Formats: sequence, structure tokens, C-alpha cells
Amino acid sequence: MPLGERSGDDKNDSRYCGVETDFNDDMPHLLSFNLHGGFDFVVAPLMDPTYRPSLLENGSNGAGVLPFAGSDLVLSPAQWSGHVVGKISSWIDLDSEDEMVRKDSEIALKQEISWASHLSLQACILPTPKGSSCANYARCVNQILQNLTSMQLWLRIPLEKSDDDSGNENPDHKIDSWDLWNSFRLLCEHHSQLSVALDVLCSLPSANSLGRWFGESVRAAMISTNSFLTNARGYPCLSKRHQKLIVGFFNHSIQMVICGEQVHSLCPGNPDSRANNTDNHNEGVHLHPLRSYLDYVAYLYQRMDPLPEQERFEFGYRDYLQSPLQPLMDNLEAQTYETFEKDTVKYIQYQRAISKALLERVPDEEATTNTTVLMVVGAGRGPLVRAALQAAEETGRKLRVYAVEKNPNAIVTLHSLVKLECWEEVVTIVACDMRCWNAPEKADILVSELLGSFGDNELSPECLDGAQRFLKPDGISIPSSYTSFIQPITASKLYNDVKSHKDLLHFETAYVVKLHRVARLAPSQPVFTFAHPEYSTKRNDRYKKLHFEIPCDTGSAMIHGFAGYFDAILYKDVHLGIEPSTATPNMFSWFPIFFPLRTPVCVQPGVPLIVHLWRCCGSTKVWYEWCVSSPVSSPVHNTNGRSYWVGL
Amino acid sequence: MPLGERSGDDKNDSRYCGVETDFNDDMPHLLSFNLHGGFDFVVAPLMDPTYRPSLLENGSNGAGVLPFAGSDLVLSPAQWSGHVVGKISSWIDLDSEDEMVRKDSEIALKQEISWASHLSLQACILPTPKGSSCANYARCVNQILQNLTSMQLWLRIPLEKSDDDSGNENPDHKIDSWDLWNSFRLLCEHHSQLSVALDVLCSLPSANSLGRWFGESVRAAMISTNSFLTNARGYPCLSKRHQKLIVGFFNHSIQMVICGEQVHSLCPGNPDSRANNTDNHNEGVHLHPLRSYLDYVAYLYQRMDPLPEQERFEFGYRDYLQSPLQPLMDNLEAQTYETFEKDTVKYIQYQRAISKALLERVPDEEATTNTTVLMVVGAGRGPLVRAALQAAEETGRKLRVYAVEKNPNAIVTLHSLVKLECWEEVVTIVACDMRCWNAPEKADILVSELLGSFGDNELSPECLDGAQRFLKPDGISIPSSYTSFIQPITASKLYNDVKSHKDLLHFETAYVVKLHRVARLAPSQPVFTFAHPEYSTKRNDRYKKLHFEIPCDTGSAMIHGFAGYFDAILYKDVHLGIEPSTATPNMFSWFPIFFPLRTPVCVQPGVPLIVHLWRCCGSTKVWYEWCVSSPVSSPVHNTNGRSYWVGL
Repeated sequence: MPLGERSGDDKNDSRYCGVETDFNDDMPHLLSFNLHGGFDFVVAPLMDPTYRPSLLENGSNGAGVLPFAGSDLVLSPAQWSGHVVGKISSWIDLDSEDEMVRKDSEIALKQEISWASHLSLQACILPTPKGSSCANYARCVNQILQNLTSMQLWLRIPLEKSDDDSGNENPDHKIDSWDLWNSFRLLCEHHSQLSVALDVLCSLPSANSLGRWFGESVRAAMISTNSFLTNARGYPCLSKRHQKLIVGFFNHSIQMVICGEQVHSLCPGNPDSRANNTDNHNEGVHLHPLRSYLDYVAYLYQRMDPLPEQERFEFGYRDYLQSPLQPLMDNLEAQTYETFEKDTVKYIQYQRAISKALLERVPDEEATTNTTVLMVVGAGRGPLVRAALQAAEETGRKLRVYAVEKNPNAIVTLHSLVKLECWEEVVTIVACDMRCWNAPEKADILVSELLGSFGDNELSPECLDGAQRFLKPDGISIPSSYTSFIQPITASKLYNDVKSHKDLLHFETAYVVKLHRVARLAPSQPVFTFAHPEYSTKRNDRYKKLHFEIPCDTGSAMIHGFAGYFDAILYKDVHLGIEPSTATPNMFSWFPIFFPLRTPVCVQPGVPLIVHLWRCCGSTKVWYEWCVSSPVSSPVHNTNGRSYWVGL
Repeated sequence: MPLGERSGDDKNDSRYCGVETDFNDDMPHLLSFNLHGGFDFVVAPLMDPTYRPSLLENGSNGAGVLPFAGSDLVLSPAQWSGHVVGKISSWIDLDSEDEMVRKDSEIALKQEISWASHLSLQACILPTPKGSSCANYARCVNQILQNLTSMQLWLRIPLEKSDDDSGNENPDHKIDSWDLWNSFRLLCEHHSQLSVALDVLCSLPSANSLGRWFGESVRAAMISTNSFLTNARGYPCLSKRHQKLIVGFFNHSIQMVICGEQVHSLCPGNPDSRANNTDNHNEGVHLHPLRSYLDYVAYLYQRMDPLPEQERFEFGYRDYLQSPLQPLMDNLEAQTYETFEKDTVKYIQYQRAISKALLERVPDEEATTNTTVLMVVGAGRGPLVRAALQAAEETGRKLRVYAVEKNPNAIVTLHSLVKLECWEEVVTIVACDMRCWNAPEKADILVSELLGSFGDNELSPECLDGAQRFLKPDGISIPSSYTSFIQPITASKLYNDVKSHKDLLHFETAYVVKLHRVARLAPSQPVFTFAHPEYSTKRNDRYKKLHFEIPCDTGSAMIHGFAGYFDAILYKDVHLGIEPSTATPNMFSWFPIFFPLRTPVCVQPGVPLIVHLWRCCGSTKVWYEWCVSSPVSSPVHNTNGRSYWVGL
């Protein structure tokens, strides 16, 4: 039973809640008890926890039957795979100093995973590594992963791990459990079937430290009953910080699992408190002892704000890598124009900028005599022409518009639009590449929308350099400037998607992507700025070196690449952009861009991350190169634009 | 003219000495002056050092002719490529804060390299990066490297670099120039055409710090005249440490280049000292001002000890990667037997061990009555049979020998050997795999030589486990135990050779290789030990975690992989092995083994290097897995033996 429905929720992505159980060889009973108790699945041990392979060999039970929790036939295949997550024996310790324990652990781990595969379970939870070292455990899991068809392995990692196993003298010394996970997954080479089950306990690390997990492959949150507080009515509830974390998990489609003993006496079974439990929708029925925890988690889910319309629209694009458009080399298709033209916020900003420019350029007393020449370069199917005409109407200024467009297919639409709207007197359509058009007169205002997710990445600078020939010396370009931004991110999902192509090309390509399962590790910083018109002889290649400082309370962090954005100043204070801290609300024309790193870079607390970005211009193409030079030097990516470029 | 001949030197590898010159547009004169002065080549600027692209554009000389040192026709193609190394303008600074300097630098660098390629020069020397940052320089060089046919680029790196460019407050602060090189070559992805020209100045860093360079691709040593001392007779000479370094360079085929002004007044041109210069073989002729430095370097070369015979024998194998033998799956060829049988040192050790065992097992009074049963398992073409019989003769003990060999081709040779030597009474030949032979009696002594470079890597443990069935309970195995060892090394040449295959398989293979151009960064440590006979139920899989501490005065170091060795105890104090600190002298049967890392790991001073090695046994094969877990976690290499294994 899912956690409930939210208005406007993503329908295909219901959230479920499971429960961790002890070993029980009566699986049918275990399952029905917990499903009737309202849980969707059980996290159940598959093997008797007293089993040790070495004991069996010596005092064998003769039959050679491993002490699993029932045969595969006690549940239907659908029950096994739909409602049971295997819990691998928690005594397993592959990095023990004791060789016998290591050998027993390896044998048992392989037996249990093999059994879980036989049952077609969707996932098994692996116990937390015992000490601070996990290489032998990771080696064994990595061997297993190579032959695993579809089952997921979720490594259980506590959000905070105290160093009690290693006899550290300082009892407050905490191991950063993220380091343990990072080491484990590096040893397993970011295997896509290896994920995390996070143990949520009563104390939580800093928000920055927690934030890292949203860039990792976290599949389950194991919420201990001990982490719950008690509300005024005696019911379990969570601290504000815990609530926020749980909501974050919901937003990232992470399953919940309730763990531990019932610690709130109000729950059914306690006759004193039961009379007060008026919310109980199963009154009189013998309730599951952990039901009140489940109810609270469901309550948190149901009271979440509905997804904003834009997020719903973009839901299907989350973390899906797209190659950037090449609008200069390729002609856009009708569907693409259609999508972009729906972005009313963008055209409202353009209209505001044009209005402002018209008012400043033409005083009120000249409004009826002075005709402003406005050229839309890259007019597409006409949305900017409409914005310009609306600005003229709004301000009472006279306009002569040239709509310059190189795509012959868009020209067809433009012609019928002009006819339909009776704009023939005002608008001249020019079917020409702006870089070679011979304009009949010079323009007061040059309006363009040639921006990519990273600002200049669709070659707006090169196009406008070509177009500014027909701008008057005091003419205005809208936009007047634009700046790109980047920030380092953890994005294991994107990294794995890039890696799955198994070639260099995909690691040296920038992608347009609706970032969701990422951790943003430091504020974004400006990279390249282009201003228009630009009359100096300055070329359009650029170089920028950026120092990022990741907040120290984050702990170590993994950089899988960089999120890129832009902000454009259309005219004076009218801007438009997707840089997170200043993003124009409710605009959907641009997703961020993602520059991957061929080898993820791990940054320790206090160590600067230094990133270099180049914009390189050749005779037929423009491309970016990028690298990291601190804490370690990466290769320079995309040398000579060998993998990814934008054609001129 | 090479630096001279050494007795027993590697003939195909003469050493040459060049000289660094100023810019001179009379190249024919410059070259003939220096060649007549005794130098083999010049390191000469190719372009007028006052040239700046930005100055040319503004106050152009009209003709568009770049100010190169003469046209390509002033020297013959052979002269250009045989005697000129291009020296790229030293003003170039691609990481300047000044954008104009950066742009000028990039244009000039590309023009000069393009010109050098046009001249078919073998190499150009790139100036030392100016500050501590070099990313833009490396980006530009990396772009150039992608299109360079065969020319080498040697980045000039001082052995010690003071931090004078960056305005550091502490004037004694030294940048470790190796870090600069390491960063540069990582940015250029270990490109095989990018090497180092080391600047040798008067002060030298620690021996450990210097040692790192012998694992790098160093092509030239630029010895400043300032680094020379003056001997009692007024001649230039070098300190003991400098001498040792230069000899190290000679041993690594690194070219010498004399740089700087004449600073020793004794040289020709100073009439006071000239009369004393009786060594001078060009008396009366106008000598090159740097001739005395050249003579000293040639003297150092000529007085080097000749290469030992074994080194000469192994010269052609230096740094040449070989796949390890699979003697169990494949039968060895005659040529391989031939080579191994020549290793007399090895058989002398075996004979000593057998003699010792015979004397201890059979008291003098039983010498004529007690016949010892000795089995050679893996007898090959008989060298151990011979060693056993010689030991029997030497000790006066009686022997019955079984020679067990699975290779039917070697059996042919064994039969004719036994006939030729009239051993029929004593030696029984058994054509059988030792793992399945039914022995007619039990052995007192089991002799085998199944060791690989890494001890157990040719499956000696598995073979002897099979053979110990026919050893008496108190019987002796020779060898009685063996241990493998590893140590971390810098080995950029080997890394590049592995990388050139462009696949995972080669990065997960261990190679047999005569290590030469490597830096050994820490003493080797024992890994796996096997003792025979072994009657416990212990399996032959093993796991070892090793902590290496690289001496702090080394500075940062790059680990390209691990050198592996073995040491075997044949019997009591008679051992045999290739572990460097205890290696058996003059034995050539085994080169070390090399375990590569897919991504080289850089270790900062004081940070431990933690390495894990596994020996894994399956039903049909045995393999190693390995990884690093500190300072960063590498992937586990060769999971499930997917790339490299030894067949059972």
C-alpha cells in the first residue's frame, strides 16, 4: 500500500514503506503479518543468524541443507520479488583481523546472494562495513556484482558512524560514513547495481554533509524508531531536521523502511494510551506494533506541497542526458519551436526589455514621428517579433521590424503569421543568415535569442559579431550581455549514464539535463561574459580559472562534473537566466548543462577545487576544453574539440 | 661525436652531449662552431627572442615573414634533424595574469612548433612553466601533441625551483618542481611524446627526491656551468653527488646538454692557464669556450664501470613487458628450457640444498646402506636431476631418483640424457602430471622448481599440494617455502606501454619485465608465503593488506604500479630469490613481475599508501586481484580474473 496520494504528484512514482524484521523461518506468516500491518515490503534476513560455514563443515548436519528462511515455494515468485528485500547476515565481517571470520563471511555472503538471486528478489541489503576499512568486503561484492543479472545490492550506511569498533581513544571521534561508502563504490568502480540504504538515527550531521547523499544512488532510508521524538499526545514524531530530510528522500524517490523496536508506549498493545488513539482507522483490530511510525511517515508524505506545474512538466526529463542543440548547423524542427514558444515568461522579459529601450531611445514628444528600426535576428517562427510589436503598442512608439531568419521552414510560418496578424506594413521578413545579410538600413535595436544553457554555447557571440555590422553606432543589442556559470556537483547517476557508453567521446561532451539527483557542492561562479555590440578586436576565445571552496562541514565530496548555467542582461535591469540563485521563475526553455569528468575527483575538506575552462574558436567550429588542477590534475578534456564541438 | 667508448658498454646506445646556444640567425655558423667544438648537437632558439605576435600585427613589417633563425635551406635536412634541438622562446608564459602575454605566448608557441615540425627536428625543448600553475600551458601543449607526427617535446624542469615568481614571503620556500611536471603530464594524459629536460643547478635535492626522476621519461639533462666546482688544477669538476647523478643519467640513456657561460678561467682564451692545459688534445687550435665542461662529462662517462655480463645479457629486455609463462597449461619450448638451464647459479643453490638435506637425513654410518628416494617433480630436460645426482656424489649418499614430467617433448630429451649419462640404474623417468601420478613408493625428498617471478604465480602451491601425497610423513620439500614481495614504483614508460593497448585487459595483467627506468619508492614487503609440505586444510587463496610509507624527503610520488619479486627457502639457510635486498647474485632465470594500476595514484608526503592483494582460486584457474585504498581507492583490478589468470 503506497504512502498515499498527493495532489499533483508524479503518478508513476509512488512511495512505499517497508519494515525491517528479525529472522523468521515462517516467511508466509512474517509477510502477511507485516503487509496486513500496512507495510509494503519486509527487509528480512534470509538465513539463520547463528549459521557459520566453518561450524557446519566440522559438525555438519549431514543433509547439506543451508538454514535459509524457508524454501522458495513458501511464497509465490511475485511475493518474493514484490515484497521481500533480502537482509544479508549482519555478523558478516570480511575485513576482520580473524581469517576464519573473513572466510566464513565470504562463503555466507556468496551463499545468501546466490539464494536471493534464485528467489529473484529485487534487492538485498548488505550490512555496514564493521571498521574503517572495507577493501576485502568490496572486492568480494565486486566479484558478485559482475555476475548479478538484475538484483540490486544496497550497502547499509549509517548517516553518522562512531568509531567504536577501532578502539579510538577519543569517544567523540566520528568516522564520516560517506568516506566509507565512497571508498567501497570506488573499489567497485561505481557499479550501477550497487546503491546505498541509509540508516537514519537520532543525531544528524550538518546539512551540507547530508546534502552529499542526494547526488548518490540512495535507494532506501532505514529510519530507526529511536530517531523518533514523542509529541504532546504521546505519538511518535520527528524533529524538524529529520522531517526535512525525509521530505528530501521523498523528493528523490527513496523508499522508507522502519527499523527497530516499538519504543512509543501509545501504540496498540498499551491499553492506557489506546483509548486516546482516536486517529486509528483500524480500531479494535490488533495493530502492527510499528503502525504509528508508518502513519507518521505517511502523514509527512501526504502533507507535502504538490509539485509546481513546471516541475511536473519537467518530471520526465529529470537526470536525462540530452545532446545540446546545434541550431546554427541544423535547422530546428517545428516541435522544438512549439516548445520554446510556450515559454511566456521568457517573451514577457523580452517585451519588458524592448519597452524600456524604446522609451529611453525615443522621447515622448517624438513618439509619433520617430520610427525605431528593430531587427530580430534569428526570428524563428516570430515570438520575438510579436514581443517587439507588443512593446511598441504598450509604449506608443513606432516601429519598423526586420525579421531575419536562416531556416527556410520557419520562414514559411513567419509569412503566414505576418499575413494573419496584418503586420505587412511594419514587418519585413528576410530569409538570410544574419552573418551575411546586406541590410538596407541600420538598426536602432538588435533583438536576438541565440542563448544556450551555457549562454554562449549556441554561438550567440559569433552570430551577433556578424550581425552588429548593421547596428547603428549608438544602437542597442538585446541581450546586451550574458555570462555563463558553473558549480561542482556530485552526480553519480549522470556519471554512470555517461560511463555506460564506454567511450571517450561521451566523457568529453557537455549535456543539457534537468538536474535532480545531484548534490550542489559550492555556489556557482561566473565563467565567460560576452557583451554586445563589441567593437574591440577581442576574439571570442576565453580562458577562466576558478577556485571553489567546498564548505568544511560538508566533509569529503566527490565531483562527477560541473553544472553550467547562464544569466543574460537583456537591457539594463531586465535579465533572464537559469543560474540557481538568480533564476527567472517559471521559465522552462533551458535546462542546465553538465560537463562530466572522465575520472571523478574526490575533494577533502579545506582543500580548494581549481577548475579551468576554455572556449576555443577554430575556423569551422567552437568548442570547450576543461580540466581540474587541484586537488589533483585531471586530463584536459576535449582537446581540440575532438569529442564535442559546435559547428559554425 | 659520442662521449667515448666504454669496455663492455651497450654498443647501440652511445651517449651524446649537446650545448645550449643563444639565438643566432646564422645557423650554419652556429652549428659548425659547436660541432667543431666537440658537441654533438645544439639546443638553439628557432625564433628571434624579441618577436611578439601582437607587436607584429600592429607595426607589421609588411612581408609577413616570421623572424625565424634562417630558412629551412640553410642546413641540410640531416643537419636539422640530426644536430639541432629546437629551443622554444623562453619568454613564453601561457599562465600569465596578463591576457596579452598569454595570447602572444600561445601564438608564438604554435608558430615555433610548427616551424620545428617543418624542419623535421627530433625534439623541441619547452621553457619551464613560470609560476606554480601551468594548466593553460599544458592545455596548449596538449592540443599541439595531438597533431605532432614524431617530434618529441621536452619540458624543461629545474631539479629545484624556488618560488620567486609568486612573491612568496619566505624566500627559502621551494616549489617541488616534480609536482609541476606531474601536473603538466597529467593534464596531457601521460602523452608519450612529452618528456622532461632536467635542469641541473648547483644545489641538489635529496637522493630520494632525485630518485623519482628515474621512473619518468627524462630525455636530457641540462647541466649549467654554474653547477661545476673547480679542481686543484683550475679545471671544472662536479661534486660527488652531482657525479653520481650524472652517472645515473648515463645509465638511463639520458642525453647531456651543457648550458650557460664559461665560468672557469682556465679554459682556452685565458692565456695564463693555457700553458698548464697539457691534457688538451687540440693544442693550438681555437677551442670552444665550453670544451673543458664537455671533456669533464666525457671523462665521467668513460671511467664508468663496464656493465656486468648479466646486465649486458639482459640489456635488450629492459622495460620490455612480457606476459608471464603458463607452464601448467602450455608446454615450454626447447628454447625456454635452453635459457633457463644456463642459469648455473640457480642449480648450484639447488645442489647445495639437496646436499644439506641428504647429509641431515642420512648419517655417515648409513651412507652406503640407506638409499634416499628423491623425486624431481617438473623435471623438464633434467637440470635438477643432474643437481641431485651431483649432490649425492658430493655427499657420498645413495639415491633413487624419479623424474616426473608432464611435457612429452621434454620426456624425449630426458630419455636421451639418461642414456647418454648412463643414469639408467638410478633415474626412473615418469611421463605424468604430478597431480595424478600413482607413485610406486614414497619419497624422502621432493625437489621442484615451479616458481614464477612472484613465487606462487606459476601455481607451485597447487602442483605441490598434488605431489605431496607421495612424500613420506617426515619427507622434505625443496623448496620448503617461498614468499612473494611487492614495492610501489614510478614507471611511466611501462604505464604508457600498457596504456597503448587501449583496453582494460592489459591494465589488469601482471607482466614479467626487466625493470630499468623505474623509481622504487619504498622497500619491498612480503605478501604471500607458501610452505611445503602443507597438511592443514588451508586453502591456497590469500589476502594481504600492506602499508607503505614513502620517505618524506621524496616529496610527492606517482605510483604507476607495483614491482613484484619472490624469495624461496630451498632448505634451511639455502635460499634463492630476486627480492632486491636479498637477491641471489648473477641469477637470470627470473625478471621481476609488474602489477600495473589503471589510474596512477599520486601520494603526498606523509600519507600512507595502502595496497591490497588477493590470490583467488577457482576450479579451473588461479588469479590475482589488487587495489589501492589509500590515499584514494582505486577500482579492484582483475575482478574474478576477468583479464589475467593462470590455468590449472
